[in-house]
Amino acid sequence: MTSTTPLPAPALQVAHWLNTPTPITLASLRGRVVVLHAFQMLCPGCVSHGLPQAQRLHQLFPPEQLAVVGLHTVFEHHAVMGRVAALRAFVHEYRLSFPIGIDQPDGHDGVPLSMQALRLRGTPSLVVLDRQGRVRLHHFGPIDDLQLGALLGQLVGEPLPAAHALPAADGCDDRGCPLPPVATSTTAPAA
Amino acid sequence: MTSTTPLPAPALQVAHWLNTPTPITLASLRGRVVVLHAFQMLCPGCVSHGLPQAQRLHQLFPPEQLAVVGLHTVFEHHAVMGRVAALRAFVHEYRLSFPIGIDQPDGHDGVPLSMQALRLRGTPSLVVLDRQGRVRLHHFGPIDDLQLGALLGQLVGEPLPAAHALPAADGCDDRGCPLPPVATSTTAPAA
Amino acid sequence: MTSTTPLPAPALQVAHWLNTPTPITLASLRGRVVVLHAFQMLCPGCVSHGLPQAQRLHQLFPPEQLAVVGLHTVFEHHAVMGRVAALRAFVHEYRLSFPIGIDQPDGHDGVPLSMQALRLRGTPSLVVLDRQGRVRLHHFGPIDDLQLGALLGQLVGEPLPAAHALPAADGCDDRGCPLPPVATSTTAPAA
Amino acid sequence: MTSTTPLPAPALQVAHWLNTPTPITLASLRGRVVVLHAFQMLCPGCVSHGLPQAQRLHQLFPPEQLAVVGLHTVFEHHAVMGRVAALRAFVHEYRLSFPIGIDQPDGHDGVPLSMQALRLRGTPSLVVLDRQGRVRLHHFGPIDDLQLGALLGQLVGEPLPAAHALPAADGCDDRGCPLPPVATSTTAPAA
Repeated sequence: MTSTTPLPAPALQVAHWLNTPTPITLASLRGRVVVLHAFQMLCPGCVSHGLPQAQRLHQLFPPEQLAVVGLHTVFEHHAVMGRVAALRAFVHEYRLSFPIGIDQPDGHDGVPLSMQALRLRGTPSLVVLDRQGRVRLHHFGPIDDLQLGALLGQLVGEPLPAAHALPAADGCDDRGCPLPPVATSTTAPAA
Repeated sequence: MTSTTPLPAPALQVAHWLNTPTPITLASLRGRVVVLHAFQMLCPGCVSHGLPQAQRLHQLFPPEQLAVVGLHTVFEHHAVMGRVAALRAFVHEYRLSFPIGIDQPDGHDGVPLSMQALRLRGTPSLVVLDRQGRVRLHHFGPIDDLQLGALLGQLVGEPLPAAHALPAADGCDDRGCPLPPVATSTTAPAA
Repeated sequence: MTSTTPLPAPALQVAHWLNTPTPITLASLRGRVVVLHAFQMLCPGCVSHGLPQAQRLHQLFPPEQLAVVGLHTVFEHHAVMGRVAALRAFVHEYRLSFPIGIDQPDGHDGVPLSMQALRLRGTPSLVVLDRQGRVRLHHFGPIDDLQLGALLGQLVGEPLPAAHALPAADGCDDRGCPLPPVATSTTAPAA
Repeated sequence: MTSTTPLPAPALQVAHWLNTPTPITLASLRGRVVVLHAFQMLCPGCVSHGLPQAQRLHQLFPPEQLAVVGLHTVFEHHAVMGRVAALRAFVHEYRLSFPIGIDQPDGHDGVPLSMQALRLRGTPSLVVLDRQGRVRLHHFGPIDDLQLGALLGQLVGEPLPAAHALPAADGCDDRGCPLPPVATSTTAPAA
């Protein structure tokens, strides 16, 4: 159910953002742990478990340590859930305050593009990125608070290699297009 | 929060029914206890508490003893929740199997007509009718399982006055078309 | 798991009572619905589910309608749980306020006498008596609030045959020593 | 409610141990994160929340990373809870598998010695030590899974200063180089 292979996550493809004045890229979150919560507003497991957990994470961790990002990955009932107004009303009523992106539809009422790229199996799904932007958890279904908290506490405490303190090393993002680092050491020096 | 004054309930005004082949009238349910659950699909307290409780009632009691009727009383976010397709997708995902009526809109994105006539204060609300069609509980907010179960068990066990033992008094229903009773006046006129 | 055969319950055999100034007999409770909750203080299912449910029943129903009676049926760890002081401390800490009897030990650290007579299969167990003292539910394990509430509401509403309105029919109790009834009709007349 | 001042914890004073073949000292756990859970077997908040949480921690973390230690800090109902047999039966029924020490009584049915030394305010209490044996959380009452998990994940991931990697827990460390103890008597003799 989970995988910890440290690969970089694909860029998000989002049609519309809620709860944020500007679009969010994963690259711009480099240096922080990222919890990406994929949900659908009519998914019972998301409403009863995943979204309340995401909201509590958003409130528990300081924003400079951890970013919670919701992703509305509509892959069924497109006519109902695929409208911005529907999601906006839902977000208002459930008092969700973290940024939420509407996953870019594929144009044929199928699986939306970020969900495809992230190879998610359904909703709720959780993808956790470490401070270097690498996928450290890829989980489908509910996950226990204690277990998730332990992973996030550990990732928040990991030192960031020097190269990552620079703007994102692997491509253009909203901060510009940096030169690639010469030798990226992905392991932390001894403290 | 509750009232047990035994007044008759006003007739339902419903724009569309789900989970039932034919429209339902309170009159046609005479002889059975009726649990009327007013909800909105984007109301968190309805989703987490009221609707699961209604569904369990629907499964627990034999249908000849008790009828659970949902009422989608949209009084906010009309553009989102006021569409039949939205409610149908919601009902499908949450696996609700009891009959649900869409309360008749007032035409001005205000409080719908049954909700007005029933003088409901919000969602979730519960209106319980005894076997004679009289309101025995009028409740806004969550209600405890033990307390609700006790009331319903008591109402189910109440004997039905002879006049009410006849088939439905005010029209044809799925049991046939009875002659009107001579002096039964416990039903409410149309609103 | 449940049985509704309407047989009378055997008399309780109790070594010591807590939360009541005088011993309780089932006969003295005739006319009221009785919920007999058999538990052990070191039984996790009793502590987490059965006892809190019994306490809520004790608070929910008027005492003239329903009596909750606890029965400490120690059938293991006798040296630890079989002491009055241990149960008293437990009852104090868990704030249980309904009468609790310590089931009479069998003298050999086996199954205590009331538990044997009631043919209980373990703890928690629930035995529900109707207003005539007949067993209407005999249940081992947790039971749902809605289901239990419905049964109790129904039993509370059952009319009491005239003979049972007299003081207890089968012996002296704390209300006195009545003459035996001539012809006890144990079924209710039609309403 | 919490404190994170990194002071070393006082040694445990334990009359008897359960679930461990040999007595445990905090010094011997140096290098691992330690969760010390103080409880009483008749404390409802311990039984419903604290002990299940401690048991889940014990199962979730690898033993070389984190040690869960229970401490039965009896400060009331001594005659009932102060017996080894009572605690043993409790531990058996609740299936607790982590080591549990019985806090050394003060000899006057007052607050036991470790509880005094740790300055605990009641039960349930949680004292969390980092890998260097310093108190990083001192908490009275229930604590949220997500919050506790995050702290423990962070502490588990903290690097251990070189001095602490030595077997002897009381040699040189970043606090200085103490004289070796002549006779460490922080463990209690067998009861």
